[in-house]
Amino acid sequence: MSIKTAIIGASGFTGSELVRILHHHPQVDIEAITSESHAGRQFSDIHPQLFGLADYELVPGAEVNADDFDLIYLALPHGVSMDFVEKLHGKRARIIDLSGDFRLSTPETYESWYGKNHTFRQGFEEAVYGLPELHREAVKESRLVANPGCYPTSVILATLPLIKGGLADPKTIIADSKSGVTGAGIKPKPLTHFSNINDNFMAYGLKRHRHTVEIEEQLAQAGGPDTVVQFTPHLLPVDRGILSTVYAQPHVEMTEEMVRNAFELQYAEEPFVRLRDHPPTIKDVRATNYCDIFPTFDDRTRRIIVIAAIDNLVKGAAGQAVHNMNLQFGWEECTGLEHLPIRP
Amino acid sequence: MSIKTAIIGASGFTGSELVRILHHHPQVDIEAITSESHAGRQFSDIHPQLFGLADYELVPGAEVNADDFDLIYLALPHGVSMDFVEKLHGKRARIIDLSGDFRLSTPETYESWYGKNHTFRQGFEEAVYGLPELHREAVKESRLVANPGCYPTSVILATLPLIKGGLADPKTIIADSKSGVTGAGIKPKPLTHFSNINDNFMAYGLKRHRHTVEIEEQLAQAGGPDTVVQFTPHLLPVDRGILSTVYAQPHVEMTEEMVRNAFELQYAEEPFVRLRDHPPTIKDVRATNYCDIFPTFDDRTRRIIVIAAIDNLVKGAAGQAVHNMNLQFGWEECTGLEHLPIRP
Amino acid sequence: MSIKTAIIGASGFTGSELVRILHHHPQVDIEAITSESHAGRQFSDIHPQLFGLADYELVPGAEVNADDFDLIYLALPHGVSMDFVEKLHGKRARIIDLSGDFRLSTPETYESWYGKNHTFRQGFEEAVYGLPELHREAVKESRLVANPGCYPTSVILATLPLIKGGLADPKTIIADSKSGVTGAGIKPKPLTHFSNINDNFMAYGLKRHRHTVEIEEQLAQAGGPDTVVQFTPHLLPVDRGILSTVYAQPHVEMTEEMVRNAFELQYAEEPFVRLRDHPPTIKDVRATNYCDIFPTFDDRTRRIIVIAAIDNLVKGAAGQAVHNMNLQFGWEECTGLEHLPIRP
Amino acid sequence: MSIKTAIIGASGFTGSELVRILHHHPQVDIEAITSESHAGRQFSDIHPQLFGLADYELVPGAEVNADDFDLIYLALPHGVSMDFVEKLHGKRARIIDLSGDFRLSTPETYESWYGKNHTFRQGFEEAVYGLPELHREAVKESRLVANPGCYPTSVILATLPLIKGGLADPKTIIADSKSGVTGAGIKPKPLTHFSNINDNFMAYGLKRHRHTVEIEEQLAQAGGPDTVVQFTPHLLPVDRGILSTVYAQPHVEMTEEMVRNAFELQYAEEPFVRLRDHPPTIKDVRATNYCDIFPTFDDRTRRIIVIAAIDNLVKGAAGQAVHNMNLQFGWEECTGLEHLPIRP
Repeated sequence: MSIKTAIIGASGFTGSELVRILHHHPQVDIEAITSESHAGRQFSDIHPQLFGLADYELVPGAEVNADDFDLIYLALPHGVSMDFVEKLHGKRARIIDLSGDFRLSTPETYESWYGKNHTFRQGFEEAVYGLPELHREAVKESRLVANPGCYPTSVILATLPLIKGGLADPKTIIADSKSGVTGAGIKPKPLTHFSNINDNFMAYGLKRHRHTVEIEEQLAQAGGPDTVVQFTPHLLPVDRGILSTVYAQPHVEMTEEMVRNAFELQYAEEPFVRLRDHPPTIKDVRATNYCDIFPTFDDRTRRIIVIAAIDNLVKGAAGQAVHNMNLQFGWEECTGLEHLPIRP
Repeated sequence: MSIKTAIIGASGFTGSELVRILHHHPQVDIEAITSESHAGRQFSDIHPQLFGLADYELVPGAEVNADDFDLIYLALPHGVSMDFVEKLHGKRARIIDLSGDFRLSTPETYESWYGKNHTFRQGFEEAVYGLPELHREAVKESRLVANPGCYPTSVILATLPLIKGGLADPKTIIADSKSGVTGAGIKPKPLTHFSNINDNFMAYGLKRHRHTVEIEEQLAQAGGPDTVVQFTPHLLPVDRGILSTVYAQPHVEMTEEMVRNAFELQYAEEPFVRLRDHPPTIKDVRATNYCDIFPTFDDRTRRIIVIAAIDNLVKGAAGQAVHNMNLQFGWEECTGLEHLPIRP
Repeated sequence: MSIKTAIIGASGFTGSELVRILHHHPQVDIEAITSESHAGRQFSDIHPQLFGLADYELVPGAEVNADDFDLIYLALPHGVSMDFVEKLHGKRARIIDLSGDFRLSTPETYESWYGKNHTFRQGFEEAVYGLPELHREAVKESRLVANPGCYPTSVILATLPLIKGGLADPKTIIADSKSGVTGAGIKPKPLTHFSNINDNFMAYGLKRHRHTVEIEEQLAQAGGPDTVVQFTPHLLPVDRGILSTVYAQPHVEMTEEMVRNAFELQYAEEPFVRLRDHPPTIKDVRATNYCDIFPTFDDRTRRIIVIAAIDNLVKGAAGQAVHNMNLQFGWEECTGLEHLPIRP
Repeated sequence: MSIKTAIIGASGFTGSELVRILHHHPQVDIEAITSESHAGRQFSDIHPQLFGLADYELVPGAEVNADDFDLIYLALPHGVSMDFVEKLHGKRARIIDLSGDFRLSTPETYESWYGKNHTFRQGFEEAVYGLPELHREAVKESRLVANPGCYPTSVILATLPLIKGGLADPKTIIADSKSGVTGAGIKPKPLTHFSNINDNFMAYGLKRHRHTVEIEEQLAQAGGPDTVVQFTPHLLPVDRGILSTVYAQPHVEMTEEMVRNAFELQYAEEPFVRLRDHPPTIKDVRATNYCDIFPTFDDRTRRIIVIAAIDNLVKGAAGQAVHNMNLQFGWEECTGLEHLPIRP
């Protein structure tokens, strides 16, 4: 027996990636995909790779009645998503929100880092931060999942064993992250023009990127109350993938083995974390839900270094959302997410 | 119940792509993967994206007894493959050879275009050219499949309806093809150095590329005995994908509709051919077995133009091989090949 | 002694490339660069690579008085340029127009292929098509140069010796061209989004691209009155560069040597054409004004093949404009254009 | 009047980039280019972009008599260069060595980090580390310049004002660097295969890259005797360019203005350092000798962040070598290095 799902917001990369994964999910029927600007057209008119394979007609959001669905995915920009959460709230359908609107602890924090009013404060009480490696049990019971940001997914997973184990000083964390361009969205703008990105590389959002506070809050909650993260995002000339290089000062006398053990202990049972013996590349996880991690300790500098790689559209968005759904509905966690990486 | 398969030749792109597809094929067990140079190591030592996901130990080719297997894939360079075909021949296992060793009609033609002796002439009698759209019934009965070349797959599919329908003059065919770099193999050489390919583009193999004769022979057999093809390959700065732009002079008075109809008639029942209303891009078929085709007629110049796009590693190699296996064993043709395209 | 020049239209790739070349030209002072939308800002605000190196203040077009300048470059979209030509016409400044507005023979042809009215018909009487290899003497005397399109530059140079020499049947020319993305302009749009172009490849504008008629008219005039060109542009995942693969049927009995001789004869004295013994790549000419050409004959198919490579922003736009200026003012032709290619 | 120069080692990227810059240098005649493996062939046979433009015949190294030259560039791998330095030493020609053989303070340090014997210890007494921003006066008098490594050039320039000014704690420096693939050399290997790099990204050489000690020694000498640098290189899917993101803890109470002032003071007179108001991209400096730097202070985390971008083949190799030559011979520093950046 399958559940009925709807995807609100069809035009972005997250929407098409959700369809790519859900289309063959054995427990899921996609019953509606919405778009305000493209209503009446085919989903494959916007995502032509799906022509003949995933031919859904787009409907306006107003046609989606939350009582007709078991689960609704919100693939919308932040600031827009909160309105839908408010509207859909209290109905039959559970919600997985892929925007940033309910990832932080309070509306005040949201307003301070996102620079806009939050109009549905009640949502914060209910929302569960959907990083299964951190909140698996809460996700199972949740009716509103705030699906994590792409950068935070990679940085939190790279840092969690250090913080939970008390190995690293949580005030010394530096996350130097590099992301593919799909993280900047499908909307054409000067930043994402091919000739601005191709054969190029740049940092952006120094000191004030919104994902900073998301990382800090989760790590603080996990055991490092005074966590301060220096987060610096960069833009890679690639489509997909995030590689985060994380540096931390140890709290205590440290060895390579202690670092390694902390990660093995933390992730021994995790189906989507792979501990590597060599630094991973982003192609090692392309088009999959895996997070590859290489932790190490530099004896010379007395510093911990961790490299983590994910696909920003899968583990950093749609795949993690499906993982959360699998948890919510009590299915085997990897259902629909077993594809092997596409490399090259 | 599953069949037992072996893959001979693990180190190339074709080998890793076969594993990517076969690993989740519901009817197939990969029981052996061979490598002479890497025997004793793990498959994922060579293809690190598969670490923890597809952990096969590599064995030397000599350990593969063809009587223990139902099907053996040869993922070897041309000139090497013929020796294995000879050795494995007449045993229980059927063979799908992904090299060029048995694609042509006669050993003499092979020797003329490949510039080397053919040492197993008997294979030509048995080999079936494994383009399902052309030789489906023969493939079903075959014990030795010569899996088509990547360029010929795209060019033949783009031209076939014109030749079979007698619409085009078979002496006027020009195929201007552009391929991703994986077509040049995994072995490092100056040609495939990143800095030679990135932000670059070039033609190569003008007038004498081996795939020319493969295309000509298949089209001749399909109904254009005097076919002459001008085939010009180019190298794109992309990993995967072939886009072929084919030009042909009509034999008869022609219209856009006649061209379109010929393609619709030919491919109406084909599960892996998608006729498009717009020129396809190579990302529309990435990591899938689809061939997207856009045929058109230029009223002004009185010329037929056809654009065809495939993934050279899937429809141009491993995926087509799996399609052939599905035919040989009587399974539903799309089994294991339903993945949606990875885009972006 | 230097001439005074102005560049009308600063925001595009052509504008920045003109500045890159002219900034060190020993005979030229750039006295004004205009922009309507950015007037009052620095040129390097829009093109940040020039910060501290080429710090021009942008002025509105209305401030440019054509009597104050010796030469004015128009780096504007077609349809906009004609208004400026009309306004500047008859003043002291010569004009080099990099748009398509005066490249064709008549306003009627323009209107038919560009789909818009032409409002300055008088310009056609005066305009000289600025391909020095074809119209060198006329350019020297010209007051209005219509700088050629990027695709036509590559295709005409690849075909000219065949047509002028009567070697090829001018009704059989097929030009399969592949261009870098800068040819599509600096304005962000879905087509030029990084993720639509990266690792991708596509044909576009089949049968009706405006450059078709530009090529046909020039070749007709050069000696092939019944020239018909099948022109198919494609978009490469590279910044710069055009590679055109041209096919033609010989008119007469042909040999490799005859083809080669025709090109050597035609281009013996040309400073910016390099005849190659191997197919050139687009990186061989990157950031230079060279056109590299490899002509050959296929004995088997009896067809002529010519490969030509240019940098679309230099020989296909700004560099050719500077070459035309050098001709107009009687300077050594290569002045300011001697840079060696950037490779890798 | 021009000086006579030779380039030892023609086949790599550094060799071709030296020729690109020197070919039009008004004070320099390239009188010899050597190659052992390609002796007798043309330079443009190896670097085809230079065909017809820079047609030097390659000679074996043994034919170069150091007394016939004013200056000799060594564009050789480390370990090979030291033999040439020994042989050429004490002759008329000054030497600029682009390898790592004489960059460090002692042979012992070299042997410890490079893992091989150093056979010309005397060279260390004479060698001057050729970073003009640090050792301008010494370079002017030098007869043997050890041209800096590409990564160290970017990291030292990004850190120097902090160390010299005593602003940063020299034990807290983290340099997270990202380089184009040309830094890995022209020799084909699995690492540099197009399909391993394209659409990919990876860290390498963690904790033990040789450039670490080069950076530490220069910063220690500049005023931070207890400097310890955490240096992590990464490989970008681009041809050229290094972007280094440097983190440091302040020694003292700090403000954005103090950081900015330290950089302005240090680099006010430097012709090739551009202080930017926004993080630079690597395309901003492409094919030029500029180093673009953006320094900033994060009030929230109390940490200094500096972004520096260079072209690894120019400011990181050949361009800096030419700058050093200009100093040695007393010419205007920018001679031959004024090209504007190639963007896009």
